[in-house]
Amino acid sequence: MTPVELYDTTLRDGSQAEGVTFSVEDKIRIVHELDVLGIHYIEGGYPGSNPKDIEFFQHIKDHELKIGQVVPFGSTRHPDVTPDEDANLIALLDTGLPTVTIFGKSWNLHAEFVLRVSPEKNLEMIEDSVRFLTEHGRTVIYDAEHFFDGYKADRDYALETLRVAAAGGAQRLVLCDTNGGTLPLEIYTIVQDVRSNFDTPLGIHTHNDAGVAVAGSLIAIQAGVSHVQGTFNSYGERCGNANLSTVIPNLKLKMGIDCIDDEQLARLTYVSRVISELANLAHDERQPYVGRAAFAHKGGMHIDAVRKNRLTFEHIEPERVGNEQRILISEQAGRSAILMKLERELPGLDKKSPEAMQVFDALKEAERNGYQYEGAEASFQLLTHKTLKRYQPSFDLLGFRVIIEKFHDHSMRSEATIKVRETNGVIKHTAADGDGPVNALDSALRKALEQFYPELQEVYLTDFKVRVLDSRAGTAARVRVLIEASDGEETWGTVGVSENIIQACWEALADSLEYKLFKERSGRRMERRLK
Amino acid sequence: MTPVELYDTTLRDGSQAEGVTFSVEDKIRIVHELDVLGIHYIEGGYPGSNPKDIEFFQHIKDHELKIGQVVPFGSTRHPDVTPDEDANLIALLDTGLPTVTIFGKSWNLHAEFVLRVSPEKNLEMIEDSVRFLTEHGRTVIYDAEHFFDGYKADRDYALETLRVAAAGGAQRLVLCDTNGGTLPLEIYTIVQDVRSNFDTPLGIHTHNDAGVAVAGSLIAIQAGVSHVQGTFNSYGERCGNANLSTVIPNLKLKMGIDCIDDEQLARLTYVSRVISELANLAHDERQPYVGRAAFAHKGGMHIDAVRKNRLTFEHIEPERVGNEQRILISEQAGRSAILMKLERELPGLDKKSPEAMQVFDALKEAERNGYQYEGAEASFQLLTHKTLKRYQPSFDLLGFRVIIEKFHDHSMRSEATIKVRETNGVIKHTAADGDGPVNALDSALRKALEQFYPELQEVYLTDFKVRVLDSRAGTAARVRVLIEASDGEETWGTVGVSENIIQACWEALADSLEYKLFKERSGRRMERRLK
Repeated sequence: MTPVELYDTTLRDGSQAEGVTFSVEDKIRIVHELDVLGIHYIEGGYPGSNPKDIEFFQHIKDHELKIGQVVPFGSTRHPDVTPDEDANLIALLDTGLPTVTIFGKSWNLHAEFVLRVSPEKNLEMIEDSVRFLTEHGRTVIYDAEHFFDGYKADRDYALETLRVAAAGGAQRLVLCDTNGGTLPLEIYTIVQDVRSNFDTPLGIHTHNDAGVAVAGSLIAIQAGVSHVQGTFNSYGERCGNANLSTVIPNLKLKMGIDCIDDEQLARLTYVSRVISELANLAHDERQPYVGRAAFAHKGGMHIDAVRKNRLTFEHIEPERVGNEQRILISEQAGRSAILMKLERELPGLDKKSPEAMQVFDALKEAERNGYQYEGAEASFQLLTHKTLKRYQPSFDLLGFRVIIEKFHDHSMRSEATIKVRETNGVIKHTAADGDGPVNALDSALRKALEQFYPELQEVYLTDFKVRVLDSRAGTAARVRVLIEASDGEETWGTVGVSENIIQACWEALADSLEYKLFKERSGRRMERRLK
Repeated sequence: MTPVELYDTTLRDGSQAEGVTFSVEDKIRIVHELDVLGIHYIEGGYPGSNPKDIEFFQHIKDHELKIGQVVPFGSTRHPDVTPDEDANLIALLDTGLPTVTIFGKSWNLHAEFVLRVSPEKNLEMIEDSVRFLTEHGRTVIYDAEHFFDGYKADRDYALETLRVAAAGGAQRLVLCDTNGGTLPLEIYTIVQDVRSNFDTPLGIHTHNDAGVAVAGSLIAIQAGVSHVQGTFNSYGERCGNANLSTVIPNLKLKMGIDCIDDEQLARLTYVSRVISELANLAHDERQPYVGRAAFAHKGGMHIDAVRKNRLTFEHIEPERVGNEQRILISEQAGRSAILMKLERELPGLDKKSPEAMQVFDALKEAERNGYQYEGAEASFQLLTHKTLKRYQPSFDLLGFRVIIEKFHDHSMRSEATIKVRETNGVIKHTAADGDGPVNALDSALRKALEQFYPELQEVYLTDFKVRVLDSRAGTAARVRVLIEASDGEETWGTVGVSENIIQACWEALADSLEYKLFKERSGRRMERRLK
């Protein structure tokens, strides 16, 4: 197949998503990651709009890239000025970057309601804006906003907007499904029609409002488009943009289009996760290819099958995209799941040895009591190593007390006291207040341990989940608490179970700190690393 | 277009997802919601496998449904037994349900590596298993597992597996993309080929490993399939299944297939959110159609445009699927949603009256603080009636104290003291122990109230859920507690929110008892009755 250009707009369209904001430093870091990954165009933002984007474009000039080029984004000129008077077009030139993207209106409805110009005036604006930029030596990528809706409303007019953009010198005509409502087969037919009318290379830009953004991009390429726009992790307004971390492996592994090389592809999971860290959003576990659950197996029958042959339940080898297989330990997974976990944890362990049976029994017993180790690999490791007496806990709990009071004026107070003995025999007895009982307990425990183990200061909790087991038991129900902690380098999960919610939190909390000490002392690494 | 059957497998394939577990009560509630929504088949689980599913099938017999039918799921017989000796097939019959689904192997690789049988033996197993069920009067839906991979590996064999299933009497042949790796155009071509070889109605079942599950389902329907399987919120193992909450509105609003009626479609957002509450998972904000951000506008330009004409940036009217437009700058969430709820609660209330505004403000404030009344209708009613001073609380909390202690021998003690004033002015000060702090508080509160309100003895808690909001705040995170209570006649839900988990539990607990007194005194009935 023909080569396909990759165009990332995480920094522009992606930052339209609810809750997504990148600092200038974040943006520069992302540009470098995308460059190393092999992305050809990296849209940086609107240089004409906000101060942060202006600062970004000033900085990015000094950064040399390997493959990609940074592209500024803007619109066709304002109706009341000529192109050389238009602040937005001038800001694009001022970035000094060789390629620029501008969008124009393909849909009469928009010309009428949004721009309040006649259809003819809109055509003029497109053509002279593009020409102004090309005459200043720029390569112009023309984004035909709402192209598919415009085409469905008035095919000839929509095609005419492309024709004038091409006449102005645009080197790419990008067909945008801005509202994300067009289904794949319709995209296929429309792209084929456009293809038969234009020689200029076409691009595709889709949104996910009908849940088919990735499929729309792929089918457009199958219909002859050679340039695809999207964002990482599908960030974008409303339901998001086409997810490049899904599009890229589909192109390469399913459609045989060599858009990036094998080594670059193996960085995909890492890049997707770094971008979510920088966006300060939890990484979507179920994301195709790069999600933490993308190659996770839970059902006993499936685990059994993938042990026999990985192809049975994996559509690709996870390592190709830098991801990995995970075997979830759950009520549905049987003995084979636990054995597989053990194999990875203790390579060389004889599965029939008394030691293996001991661990196996300990795990079965824990599961019977409601523990669940999917998402709590750190507790799993601690349990395994403690059972085999290969690890000595770093502290011994002598007791705690938590008091929660609510007063008539509705104010509240939570206080925890805790007594622990460290491995050197020293007893620490501390007290702390908190926003609720668990926070108080957390603070008191850290007070007790941080003097002896200063590395615990690096640990912070990143996620906290509570699930009620046998929920019919009402307030006497057992609860399972999952905590995710990080030291900035790795992330790990721990679990606690009890009818007493405070005790369940305590167990997960204690394991999360214990695990940090365990991994530092044993030089271990968690499977999931961020750097 | 021809009608399309909707088949939901949230309760079976959906519960394969990491972190998803439903109680028997949850499953029954979901069956009812899906039935009202108009889903034709609701797969309930494996009756032959785990005790929870067995209990579910025992219970579900007594529930009458309007439209849908509950379907048990199983596999073709074990290689070493005849169908009438096969425990799994017998368990399917034992449910007494008229339609059953079984899956069989379409792919040689699976017959060889997983079942360890010859290709011929696999064909026999499919045919005689289906025949056994049809001869016992069942309608059989045959799920051809890994059909697309099997077809690509050996077209003739894959088609032969369908042929023997049809020969056994299967009434639907469902083509499954079990590994989720097949792209839409390929699905289109393969379905067309199958279509031309079979008269039996075809179905489609896709997974999202390539990010195209919804598109694959739609294109299969365009190629002639008339039965579509999926899950709500795309729950399912690895990257999930085709999302029915996306497939349904695409069928109805984009493809003109009248699979459910307009009124049912308007419940879609509600059902999707209830299921995520029951799964105890955050609802994905960016989900097409039903997500909170699906019609949210952030950029100034876009907000301006949608004010002028909603079509400019909305592919459908959000109200059609029970969702709503959100304008992010104002942070004004849910006015129409609240008004809709109010209308239901106080029919005839003038929406522009000061009273309505008062309730509106109170609800908006509560929602801003993390309260959510989907699944907590009792708290919603109490809040409404208290705000309008139409109801006087039955008791006034003067204060409580909870002490949780853990001793060196690992034993624990939880004690609560509580002081309340009853409406007659009597102050009760009680103390109780419990299995954990919430149970102790529950016992102390009942001790205080039951003498004056003996009807509270009828109330027992049937469900208890804890959800961490802003989970990144770690142990200082706000939590939302949902409690479901019953008096044997009706069931109602209440909610509490706080950074202090004990306070959040207290609120939900107090509301659950308060609601019992409220409904007894006002002669009210909850809309949701289980018996």
